[in-house]
Amino acid sequence: MDSIIYLVPAFGVVGLLYTAWRFSWVTKQPAGTENMQKLSGYIADGAIAFLKAEWKVLTYFALPTAVLLFWLGSNEGTPENPIHSSPLIAVAFLLGAVFSATAGYIGMKVATKANVRTAEAARTSLAKALKVSFTGGAVMGMGVAGLAVLGLGGLFIIFYQLFAFGQPLTSDKMKKAIEVLAGFSLGAESIALFARVGGGIYTKAADVGADLVGKVEVGIPEDDVRNPATIADNVGDNVGDVAGMGADLFGSYVATILATMVLGQEIEVIDNYGGFSPVLLPMLIAAVGLLASLVSTFLVRINKETDSVQNALNLGNWASIIITFITSYFLVKNILPENLSLRGFDFTSTGVYLAIVVGLVVGALMSIITEYYTAMGKRPVDSIVQKSGTGHATNIIGGLAVGMESTVLPILVLAAGIIFSYKFAGLYGVSIAAAGMMATTAMQMAIDAFGPIADNAGGIAEMSQLPPEVRERTDNLDAVGNTTAATGKGFAIASAALTSLALFAAFVGIAGISAIDIYKADVLAGLFVGGMIPFIFSALAISAVGKAAMEMVNEVRRQFREIPGIMEYEAEPEYEKCVAISTEASLRQMLLPGAIALVVPVLVGFTMGPEVLGGVLAGVTVSGVLMGMFQSNAGGAWDNAKKSFEKGVMIDGQMYYKKSEPHKASVTGDTVGDPFKDTSGPSMNILIKLMSIVSLVIAPYIAVTSGAVVMTETIEVMAENNGSGVEVNKYKLELDNGLKMDISTPGNPVEIGLIDFIRSEKPVDKVTWFDFDRLTFETGSAKLDAASSDQLTNVADILKAFPAVAIKLGGYTDNTGNADNNLKLSVDRAKSVMQSLVAKGVEASRIESEGYGDQHPVASNDTEEGRNQNRRISIRVTEK
Amino acid sequence: MDSIIYLVPAFGVVGLLYTAWRFSWVTKQPAGTENMQKLSGYIADGAIAFLKAEWKVLTYFALPTAVLLFWLGSNEGTPENPIHSSPLIAVAFLLGAVFSATAGYIGMKVATKANVRTAEAARTSLAKALKVSFTGGAVMGMGVAGLAVLGLGGLFIIFYQLFAFGQPLTSDKMKKAIEVLAGFSLGAESIALFARVGGGIYTKAADVGADLVGKVEVGIPEDDVRNPATIADNVGDNVGDVAGMGADLFGSYVATILATMVLGQEIEVIDNYGGFSPVLLPMLIAAVGLLASLVSTFLVRINKETDSVQNALNLGNWASIIITFITSYFLVKNILPENLSLRGFDFTSTGVYLAIVVGLVVGALMSIITEYYTAMGKRPVDSIVQKSGTGHATNIIGGLAVGMESTVLPILVLAAGIIFSYKFAGLYGVSIAAAGMMATTAMQMAIDAFGPIADNAGGIAEMSQLPPEVRERTDNLDAVGNTTAATGKGFAIASAALTSLALFAAFVGIAGISAIDIYKADVLAGLFVGGMIPFIFSALAISAVGKAAMEMVNEVRRQFREIPGIMEYEAEPEYEKCVAISTEASLRQMLLPGAIALVVPVLVGFTMGPEVLGGVLAGVTVSGVLMGMFQSNAGGAWDNAKKSFEKGVMIDGQMYYKKSEPHKASVTGDTVGDPFKDTSGPSMNILIKLMSIVSLVIAPYIAVTSGAVVMTETIEVMAENNGSGVEVNKYKLELDNGLKMDISTPGNPVEIGLIDFIRSEKPVDKVTWFDFDRLTFETGSAKLDAASSDQLTNVADILKAFPAVAIKLGGYTDNTGNADNNLKLSVDRAKSVMQSLVAKGVEASRIESEGYGDQHPVASNDTEEGRNQNRRISIRVTEK
Repeated sequence: MDSIIYLVPAFGVVGLLYTAWRFSWVTKQPAGTENMQKLSGYIADGAIAFLKAEWKVLTYFALPTAVLLFWLGSNEGTPENPIHSSPLIAVAFLLGAVFSATAGYIGMKVATKANVRTAEAARTSLAKALKVSFTGGAVMGMGVAGLAVLGLGGLFIIFYQLFAFGQPLTSDKMKKAIEVLAGFSLGAESIALFARVGGGIYTKAADVGADLVGKVEVGIPEDDVRNPATIADNVGDNVGDVAGMGADLFGSYVATILATMVLGQEIEVIDNYGGFSPVLLPMLIAAVGLLASLVSTFLVRINKETDSVQNALNLGNWASIIITFITSYFLVKNILPENLSLRGFDFTSTGVYLAIVVGLVVGALMSIITEYYTAMGKRPVDSIVQKSGTGHATNIIGGLAVGMESTVLPILVLAAGIIFSYKFAGLYGVSIAAAGMMATTAMQMAIDAFGPIADNAGGIAEMSQLPPEVRERTDNLDAVGNTTAATGKGFAIASAALTSLALFAAFVGIAGISAIDIYKADVLAGLFVGGMIPFIFSALAISAVGKAAMEMVNEVRRQFREIPGIMEYEAEPEYEKCVAISTEASLRQMLLPGAIALVVPVLVGFTMGPEVLGGVLAGVTVSGVLMGMFQSNAGGAWDNAKKSFEKGVMIDGQMYYKKSEPHKASVTGDTVGDPFKDTSGPSMNILIKLMSIVSLVIAPYIAVTSGAVVMTETIEVMAENNGSGVEVNKYKLELDNGLKMDISTPGNPVEIGLIDFIRSEKPVDKVTWFDFDRLTFETGSAKLDAASSDQLTNVADILKAFPAVAIKLGGYTDNTGNADNNLKLSVDRAKSVMQSLVAKGVEASRIESEGYGDQHPVASNDTEEGRNQNRRISIRVTEK
Repeated sequence: MDSIIYLVPAFGVVGLLYTAWRFSWVTKQPAGTENMQKLSGYIADGAIAFLKAEWKVLTYFALPTAVLLFWLGSNEGTPENPIHSSPLIAVAFLLGAVFSATAGYIGMKVATKANVRTAEAARTSLAKALKVSFTGGAVMGMGVAGLAVLGLGGLFIIFYQLFAFGQPLTSDKMKKAIEVLAGFSLGAESIALFARVGGGIYTKAADVGADLVGKVEVGIPEDDVRNPATIADNVGDNVGDVAGMGADLFGSYVATILATMVLGQEIEVIDNYGGFSPVLLPMLIAAVGLLASLVSTFLVRINKETDSVQNALNLGNWASIIITFITSYFLVKNILPENLSLRGFDFTSTGVYLAIVVGLVVGALMSIITEYYTAMGKRPVDSIVQKSGTGHATNIIGGLAVGMESTVLPILVLAAGIIFSYKFAGLYGVSIAAAGMMATTAMQMAIDAFGPIADNAGGIAEMSQLPPEVRERTDNLDAVGNTTAATGKGFAIASAALTSLALFAAFVGIAGISAIDIYKADVLAGLFVGGMIPFIFSALAISAVGKAAMEMVNEVRRQFREIPGIMEYEAEPEYEKCVAISTEASLRQMLLPGAIALVVPVLVGFTMGPEVLGGVLAGVTVSGVLMGMFQSNAGGAWDNAKKSFEKGVMIDGQMYYKKSEPHKASVTGDTVGDPFKDTSGPSMNILIKLMSIVSLVIAPYIAVTSGAVVMTETIEVMAENNGSGVEVNKYKLELDNGLKMDISTPGNPVEIGLIDFIRSEKPVDKVTWFDFDRLTFETGSAKLDAASSDQLTNVADILKAFPAVAIKLGGYTDNTGNADNNLKLSVDRAKSVMQSLVAKGVEASRIESEGYGDQHPVASNDTEEGRNQNRRISIRVTEK
């Protein structure tokens, strides 16, 4: 393997150095008054308390899982059905979990430092406040990307050295190395489950609890320091929107690269990187995207109070995308060879680049569409505002309708993305499109994490009773943050969808199935069950918020009742009790939905087999993407419909403001939307990715135990109309490993004999020869006719598909003419065939050739037909 | 075909005679005071006005569609790819539409007569009121079932006579007869679209409009005669719940029977009904179910005021199911032969019966589960009640969570139903399970239609200011009607799901594809797009209600403003204007969603081909079933959560009644739930069925134009471990028409030669012979070895699969021994093979045999190998 691979972890280190540098910059900023520091200290403590509690639960989950993986990885299968894994997959899993947890930790740390410093900076200028808050986000973004690239790249190098040193990419050893690497992704995605779902429950339970008692019952404003749940509420922003989103994107980022590597491992090419370019490319794109994001962070800045914060963020975002767009071209063109082929689908390096472009376009369109459906002043949000005029119910109906409608364009974009990326580069194209889209994850994450920091800064400003212009500046940042949160969710769900598809394709390959046929009754039943899972998952997540919020409400009520002097600022509420409630409730409530995501694939896979599991995965993905968009967008639209009332809205010719009846209806919508957009909606991402990655990890095991069928050859006979009305039969052979070729007849051509022998249990012997049946030479010469090329290509493809096989070619003639001449001709012809195979990419070392002249006739030399049979080239397997 | 078929339309006539008899009984009941008659007259006029307006729109839609179908049906395809249809499909389509419209007309007529008579009967006793209202429902139910059975059975007989008289079931002529019959189902389902979706918009627009102004703004009770929209509201109950539900079930009923017939047409059997039993069975089951329902209607009665109305209805329902359960057994056992086979899946008549039982069980379980999730006093509705205590938003969240959760059990039941019915009897089993479930449609419909009649009776009692005990009795009936409405919806969605699956299977067969592989990028994209359609359809339906309700609100406000004296009962409101608004708005608003259902399959089918269309259908079905259940159940639960307040509920230790804050929150939920449960939820049924039936009708056309592939043979090689560790290769041949067999080698056995020749364009000649390769005789005898049976079975299967083919068998020997003896032996052996084929079910008239002795050797008789080759039985195709 080429040393270019070392660039990948090196870029990861660059990202982490940037992280450390900017982190220390943030830390050095002034942290405000003592009171501000105390409040931010509470938030930081609460956030760390959640992380610690999460890690504890995680340990209970991760250690048994690691043991299970260790045990599974020790299973080597049978000699006929080897399983390419290793107990080290348990280590990869734990590392994935630790890396993801570390990314979350860095994010929480910087966010809880940046929040108070942003508030302090907002006392001087908007530019300064943006700089601090965005730098906090950038630390998180580069941390996520840096750790992912370092972890994946580093482990890849290690596992390559351990398992497959010196082996070609398509070897079984490499398959093992990459299967073990899948453990890293499983670890990352498992953490994401806890962080995203648990975080989602946490943040909304605290939010709803704080609002219901504080705002509604006691009548104090949001973020009032007297509210016992206000710290928990601010912690929630960090837990849900920083750590949860971070873990989600970290998981998508890793899974996308990994899935592309799993598919790339099947591609045999001759390139300048030892044939490794198909697996190097996704890692290098990630590395390049990381650098592009890093450079672009410096563009996010404003100078004057009146400059647009949104424009500044957009500039950074587009810069990172455009840099990736341009550099990917040179990367692809330099790394990949001109022509590639995966599971019988031929494509070019240009096709791969176009697939990356498809990914970038899909990501950008998804963000734009999401913004349209959730932004203030656009038709969808306005329609909800208008419907608020006739009450709570019509507001809700309006929001639900907007959410449902908002699935149309994204699904069409996604469907087009699938079709085009496949068209350009097959399954590798679908996967690399996802990788292209995820390349700028660092920048996306920076923009996403900036929002909650600004939100927190506003909270601290309010709690510390800073002057109104400070709150105004943080509100400005927060408003932009709300938009970026919505577009970020669009990006996250699109990335999850594409990632799942890539994992889906990888799963199919490893599970050894060649189709997922929903016309089969059990597969269709699987599709139904899979489609149902996002519904029950959402129901559980939403109910969890309700239950946790109730506990919070009771605690807040208790404090107001039992602690005298809170309302008079004389006694401080017991913030930590509320933090503890949110923490415990969220982690407890996410166990059942989490278990569904983890257990269903295992259960279905081992009892019903991989094809039914494929049906379940397809159902989960389709339904999950739809439910995710529906809920996130409805929630976002309700939120901004409510916010529209702050500046006043015109309904039926009359202006309405906050506290009006329509505004109350809009608050109902917003409250319904909260768990939709921050808990169940974004959880769909994790659900579909986690179920896919679990399936991928168990794929080698269910592939073996799923029945007696271990190999399938399909011969398809097509009567094609050749254009002039004559029907010509064409025969296509397709193996379950994806090898595909045209063969001459449905009879017993050399291709089938060769494949059957290679895949059978028969030992290599000296008597089993297969005759070419479509080779012709110029009479008396060793020069192959052009028509022979088809079958030679097939045989070369077979040899490439089975890299362990070595062969011997035998040349034979009939007994007409001089025996010496015959011998020479037979030697030359066998050599000529050998040269042709080498020219088609088979290593010369795998082929020997010999001429036998007129010896070993297979038919009588008395008839022309017999002589014709005797003039032949045969092939014998010498090693397999 | 056997004359038993005439029983089917005869039973339909029996049903219609019952309808006429009970209709006249209802008409003869006393219709109350003049005022009551006037009010019921308004409702009847409004209902008929809607029907007439609907029919007008329908004419604009149906006539061009009929022309299109006429044109499509005139296309006979090419000689190689004949299309088995006829312009008469346009007539079948129009008849389907007319029959469905007639069923709706009968239902509306009787419902608008029974409502006022129920109110009048309620002045005397509950028993009498139940009798009138249920008889009204039974008239509708028997009308729907009678027309369906008469229409389908009658048309089947006519088309058989016209197109396929004397032809066997599996002939192309019969295929044509049944394809034309599919037009009837398309017509019925198209009407259902207008009736269900339009009716759903109508009823909720009127309801919401009446409530928002009447109850909320003006403060008059529901059903107050002063409310201009109250007549429209009562008309809506008939339009939506009677005509809409009726059209929905009529469509499901017809489509299920038809889909089973499409699949049955492919089954070749020898039975006592000329081989027609597989298509007769679904029609006979429907006929038997109709009779069972008819008998059971007489069991629905109570004697005392305190008797349970629910129990009386349950008795009738269960009686009809149990009678069907028992009679189906004898029907299946007597009609079907012991063994059947469809597309390579072998099953028995017992399996078919078990599949019917699966259908009955699935239907019953679906109703029970739906009742659990929507009934008062059960955990789901109670949870919503409790959440109403904390406001509008938590009530909404609770309802949404209940709706989402309510999908779990039904989906598991449905998935198990698919798996088991398939296991018992293949695709025919899935389809017949649906037919079994739908058998008692008449009774289901009677119970469903009873509800809105009782509801209307209550409305008339209120409007006519009848004494309170009358309203009490009608409320009793209405409450039971609400439960039956919910369970009816569960039944309807389950029936739609199973019907769609049956149509899906039928579609696959006719479209000529053998798999729908979601691993293919474009099929997966289709799955996504299909999954999205129920979301946009729901969004449009919900928004339509909102828009229509707004128009209604404005009109009602105008009348209160501009017509003096309404509030003082001095002036009568202009009821007809409100009726007109609901009518026009509902028909206008349903055009876009309707167009989606009709156009998408055509668009996708003709541009992307049948497999992608299959992906779209699967996506629509899965997502549609989920969204249908989610919305219907959430709506039903919200409704009953609100109703729970009438008797008072305990929340957090405190009792709350109507007009309390929690009750207001529950009203919000109910209002949100209204379009969910009565418009968009039930529309999902029509959406998925209509898209499936449109696909089925266009299937022959897209099958031809979808590309050059017209036939596929798959040879699967399986290395099976024979138990003692030795791998044995087994070869399975599968054709795209479902024919499946084990063959000897992947080489060129007689089976492949025969099939290739039959399916090729090659004309029949006298020289193309194929040699049996697995026949052995006892030495010197014509007695076949037992081992020969395998290949003979294969050849017999092939001949059955291609009924037009006739063959000649040739017997040959080597030249050892006496030539005369050789000749005789060859004659006997050929005959022996012929007899064996006849014994395996091939008509003797299709086979001739001849012995050629030692003539026509194919190899040298000098070697043992050559002699062995010369001793053979060959086969030649003489007709195809």
